[in-house]
Amino acid sequence: MHRIDLNCDMGEGFGAYRLGPDNELMKHITSANIACGFHAGDAATIRATVKLAMEHDVAIGAHPGLPDLAGFGRRKMNISPQEAYEMTVYQIGAVYAFAKSEGGYVSHVKPHGALYNMAAKSKPLSEAIAEAVYKVDPQLMLFGLAGSELVRAANAIGLRAINEVFADRSYEEGGTLTPRGTEGAVITDPKLAAEQAAGMIKRGVVRTRQQSDFSLKADTVCVHGDTPDALEYVMQLRTMLAQEGISVQRAGE
Amino acid sequence: MHRIDLNCDMGEGFGAYRLGPDNELMKHITSANIACGFHAGDAATIRATVKLAMEHDVAIGAHPGLPDLAGFGRRKMNISPQEAYEMTVYQIGAVYAFAKSEGGYVSHVKPHGALYNMAAKSKPLSEAIAEAVYKVDPQLMLFGLAGSELVRAANAIGLRAINEVFADRSYEEGGTLTPRGTEGAVITDPKLAAEQAAGMIKRGVVRTRQQSDFSLKADTVCVHGDTPDALEYVMQLRTMLAQEGISVQRAGE
Amino acid sequence: MHRIDLNCDMGEGFGAYRLGPDNELMKHITSANIACGFHAGDAATIRATVKLAMEHDVAIGAHPGLPDLAGFGRRKMNISPQEAYEMTVYQIGAVYAFAKSEGGYVSHVKPHGALYNMAAKSKPLSEAIAEAVYKVDPQLMLFGLAGSELVRAANAIGLRAINEVFADRSYEEGGTLTPRGTEGAVITDPKLAAEQAAGMIKRGVVRTRQQSDFSLKADTVCVHGDTPDALEYVMQLRTMLAQEGISVQRAGE
Amino acid sequence: MHRIDLNCDMGEGFGAYRLGPDNELMKHITSANIACGFHAGDAATIRATVKLAMEHDVAIGAHPGLPDLAGFGRRKMNISPQEAYEMTVYQIGAVYAFAKSEGGYVSHVKPHGALYNMAAKSKPLSEAIAEAVYKVDPQLMLFGLAGSELVRAANAIGLRAINEVFADRSYEEGGTLTPRGTEGAVITDPKLAAEQAAGMIKRGVVRTRQQSDFSLKADTVCVHGDTPDALEYVMQLRTMLAQEGISVQRAGE
Repeated sequence: MHRIDLNCDMGEGFGAYRLGPDNELMKHITSANIACGFHAGDAATIRATVKLAMEHDVAIGAHPGLPDLAGFGRRKMNISPQEAYEMTVYQIGAVYAFAKSEGGYVSHVKPHGALYNMAAKSKPLSEAIAEAVYKVDPQLMLFGLAGSELVRAANAIGLRAINEVFADRSYEEGGTLTPRGTEGAVITDPKLAAEQAAGMIKRGVVRTRQQSDFSLKADTVCVHGDTPDALEYVMQLRTMLAQEGISVQRAGE
Repeated sequence: MHRIDLNCDMGEGFGAYRLGPDNELMKHITSANIACGFHAGDAATIRATVKLAMEHDVAIGAHPGLPDLAGFGRRKMNISPQEAYEMTVYQIGAVYAFAKSEGGYVSHVKPHGALYNMAAKSKPLSEAIAEAVYKVDPQLMLFGLAGSELVRAANAIGLRAINEVFADRSYEEGGTLTPRGTEGAVITDPKLAAEQAAGMIKRGVVRTRQQSDFSLKADTVCVHGDTPDALEYVMQLRTMLAQEGISVQRAGE
Repeated sequence: MHRIDLNCDMGEGFGAYRLGPDNELMKHITSANIACGFHAGDAATIRATVKLAMEHDVAIGAHPGLPDLAGFGRRKMNISPQEAYEMTVYQIGAVYAFAKSEGGYVSHVKPHGALYNMAAKSKPLSEAIAEAVYKVDPQLMLFGLAGSELVRAANAIGLRAINEVFADRSYEEGGTLTPRGTEGAVITDPKLAAEQAAGMIKRGVVRTRQQSDFSLKADTVCVHGDTPDALEYVMQLRTMLAQEGISVQRAGE
Repeated sequence: MHRIDLNCDMGEGFGAYRLGPDNELMKHITSANIACGFHAGDAATIRATVKLAMEHDVAIGAHPGLPDLAGFGRRKMNISPQEAYEMTVYQIGAVYAFAKSEGGYVSHVKPHGALYNMAAKSKPLSEAIAEAVYKVDPQLMLFGLAGSELVRAANAIGLRAINEVFADRSYEEGGTLTPRGTEGAVITDPKLAAEQAAGMIKRGVVRTRQQSDFSLKADTVCVHGDTPDALEYVMQLRTMLAQEGISVQRAGE
């Protein structure tokens, strides 16, 4: 039987600010990527999100980002591999301590936003991130864009790499995501998105915007938590995955 | 034979900024309290300081502070016990991850500046901080002002409490430090400071500014790292402690 | 005919975060207090809010707060008068530049949250804030709690002081607000709130929680922008003020 | 007679941190670029630096940078022109308010670090920065790399552009600076640096690393304030400029 993990960015509020219906979304996913305080998140939010994940038996992940709260970690910054290493260790530590203090544990690490995108294409950044994860705890899984440099770096150092695919994003030849802003970059029809997901999960292939087929491995599907219809989307996705005979389970189990 | 730990705040630079002769001071102390990124410190500095401590066989401590980089964590803030708990867990995590990734371990936690001073007098804040430390790792030692609420809270929850004394600060009746700014608050003569330290270590007593004797336990002496003559001071202190027959050793060993 | 200004905190989002229905609220108020980037707000938000205020002919105010984004400027900090002076000048400057660059001008300054509350009771802090406002531009009006130290300091230095009253908050003997958390601190019935406002505006008196009368001057009423029913509240308030024959106009005109 | 302005970055401390011998350097320069709180600087430091500049009759400039205190504004960030506009307005405002409150005025704006370097090559960023400066005050001068996009954008919108040259940096064909890290990028011999400066000022030409001549206009020479020998360097430079018959005067006078 086919299986897939559903991961979602969580705990992306800060101070008085809230972002996303975490309480509801947490019921429908299997892996939570918890913001660590750099691009979003703070100590109180990490703690609450760790507890929420544990209540719903959702895997706890650290979601390190660039030190750019004003830009939500979405603006590329010219950081060195060493800086990538250091900011990854630091941010894992924050979630690690809350997981430990609440009686849970961190399962995985998924870089956020621009850090994720930069790593996907940069071997040195990916190697630095993978080393950071490995040095903190070699049992941690590292989530990266399916087939990207980050996945390669994770495998190379001996981490369990989790290939992430996107149901609602168009792919380019070569396996990168069509940049936002390009026409057709976002697949708004939930049915088409679920079909794309099913194809990736069951047949390991996605039809690119250029109408070619790209082969990839699908271990986890990204669910966006900050869109207005996030909740409806994940519920539809789960229904359609069930119809396709795909089981939703935590990555790595 | 009498023994004492010498602790010093370390890693208090940030980005392009440096503070204190850490490389030199680390040779002469036994416990390093490493800033965690809130009142000072950043990921690169924590890493470098953890490595430096390990090279010199100095105990690694987390040094959590208030989220006030502009004020260096020295301005009291009206935080709740819950906020104290959360900021302590978060900051321990940062140092914890670097210690782990470098093959070392965190031995102790010492709150910084205003957080330290507020905790010394507040039972609820001290209980929150002690619970945070305990929940992250019950093996961690908690450093607090000798005889203060923080020491009491540490003992109450089952942590090993380390009583900190000050060689170069005058004491008030009741065991609090004479506030900076008051005449005589700082003992500038290294010989007098060493004498005060020896008295506290060997006889468990300090002569207050009011000329009364105050009884306290001395497990560690604070060495200030950010004064111009910090290095000379610690070297003189060690010499005089040796003359008094006091052995300098890590706390808890 | 009686008249009153209606002021509301605006532009309190940050980066990806939004707070309050500014676009709607701006239609119903006469003075906007724009967050300056310390407790909330950022450059993009200030600019957008300045433009929005100008479109609705609403007075532009700077709303300086404590440097505590995580705490939304609501946690008291032990700052010196000099620090209060400096953070006030800096923050006025930010709004000043956007007003100037958009062809508008800053009319007033109202401190935020804990800075407002600390100033209300502290002569040194109020003098520092008033001096900062005066030195940047003596034509600026300074909003403060009716009858507070801040109003006195503004008058003393030669600024036009604007006495702020609260329709939906209970008053204590002596004219301070009943602290949040105390029973009855917030007046949730819009009709009672409007009656309290009318009494302050028309008769210069408010009935305290202790059932005594307190005399005060009412130049502006604070409208909260961050509550779920903020919009409904301000519309009801305006209706009832109109029924009482009270004209809503910008302060100082 | 030939003339030149000497500008230096100033006020680049933050909180407890100090950077550079501002008190001494201020005696030897004619234009101070004051950090505004994003890449460095804070309210207290801006105020002190504005006062110091006024005491020495040095022109006050705003020195806006990227919002990256940890990276000292030296890491390129993928900001939009609108973001560049907004962060420039905001930061000018901060220095503007302190200049006004101290009885002085802002003369110029010079972007910092990565913002300066990105603008030099990007027409959209330069246009955004120039528009920001112009909209806040069209009398402000805009400092940019001699012959760069920033100078062009300043001229195009009607600002007075000030061409900045570097005495101690090697030039490439095309007029860009040799990147740091490349051999020969920094001219360490003060005599050679002064000769390069004199050539640019008197003959409008610099010999590039490729041994070609590049023509440029030299209105101001950058003096680095954060190197160990900054003070000695500027004093030698002034002596040699005097020997060459070049008068040191504020830009634009």
